[in-house]
Amino acid sequence: MTDDDAPRTPVPRRRGRPARTEGSGPGARERILGAARAEFAEHGYDKASIRGIAKAAGVDPALVHHYFGPKEQIFAAAVEVAMTPALGAPDAVAEGGPEGAGERLTRFFLGVWEDPVTREPLLAILRSAVANRTAAAVFRDLVATRLMARVAGHLEGPDTRLRSELAAAQLVGVVMMRHVIGLEPLASADLEEIVAATAPVVQHHLRAET
Amino acid sequence: MTDDDAPRTPVPRRRGRPARTEGSGPGARERILGAARAEFAEHGYDKASIRGIAKAAGVDPALVHHYFGPKEQIFAAAVEVAMTPALGAPDAVAEGGPEGAGERLTRFFLGVWEDPVTREPLLAILRSAVANRTAAAVFRDLVATRLMARVAGHLEGPDTRLRSELAAAQLVGVVMMRHVIGLEPLASADLEEIVAATAPVVQHHLRAET
Repeated sequence: MTDDDAPRTPVPRRRGRPARTEGSGPGARERILGAARAEFAEHGYDKASIRGIAKAAGVDPALVHHYFGPKEQIFAAAVEVAMTPALGAPDAVAEGGPEGAGERLTRFFLGVWEDPVTREPLLAILRSAVANRTAAAVFRDLVATRLMARVAGHLEGPDTRLRSELAAAQLVGVVMMRHVIGLEPLASADLEEIVAATAPVVQHHLRAET
Repeated sequence: MTDDDAPRTPVPRRRGRPARTEGSGPGARERILGAARAEFAEHGYDKASIRGIAKAAGVDPALVHHYFGPKEQIFAAAVEVAMTPALGAPDAVAEGGPEGAGERLTRFFLGVWEDPVTREPLLAILRSAVANRTAAAVFRDLVATRLMARVAGHLEGPDTRLRSELAAAQLVGVVMMRHVIGLEPLASADLEEIVAATAPVVQHHLRAET
């Protein structure tokens, strides 16, 4: 639980070009973001450093601060990129009738985790969030605003936010046991079998049939 | 993902006293185990070392090997201790009628995570398992044999093992979002409210009502 790179005082952003800007210019921001994602994935939030990100991107550390601010904000930018494939979840709930919402959400969300290309960046974030409170807070805020609030907005009845989270909990638990812990037979089960067994439960939470 | 402490060749265990045994004697094994739990909790599986455990326990590293074997086996011993409070889960399913099995399992499992005394050691294991494949394998084997196989043994119908895991997935997801990510309103919701909303789902998986 270290926050070595957290500023002691607020860091003003975009206050003009840093003194040394070698490696800046078009594409520098994207290069830094790519380097940050790799640095967080390899070392986790705790051990990742602005210096390491700057070195991998071939820029001065001041340029990293210039574009993104402190480490926490670079991590937030990296999380946003990794989460992009999952952001279709609220649309999966909304499009089509309420009858099939649970199945659509289940198939969409678990599908994002089936493909290693979309899974690995999400796993990297999850590792950082489990290991570090600051990373967990960044992840929590983005999940709350980009996913849970939007899913809840498509539901009817009481406690829409809590019910969205309980539906998500069923799916997050499947992901944990299938892709992180690797518990059999869940880890090797056919996706359609898992969808068939899980969708009714997700639907139950979304519809609040009590 | 380092295995620095994994032996290149199998390490024979209990082949007699190591050369230096200062700090050994009655209680040494328990002292080493306590030091190992603290070391894994503080540094995670990757960074924990036999040397660090030995130092904290006040014994020679050879004595750590003597009692436990390689790092992987010390971790397994530490996981077993941390998991002890959760091992009542299969009994919670078995005792009483099948009607209330979902509610009993839900209340028991979530209850273990409500108390910081039992929660923190489990969170420490979870962090190691999410970050490291070897730690995940150790955790997986113990969860499979000590929990899932025994819960499944109390169920009837097809796919008892998969259904046990899907029930557990709902509960693990609640724990992740309530205690690890801290997503509101789930993080602050009354436990009884969560039990009321989750138990029917757990029961659905355990009973395979399709």
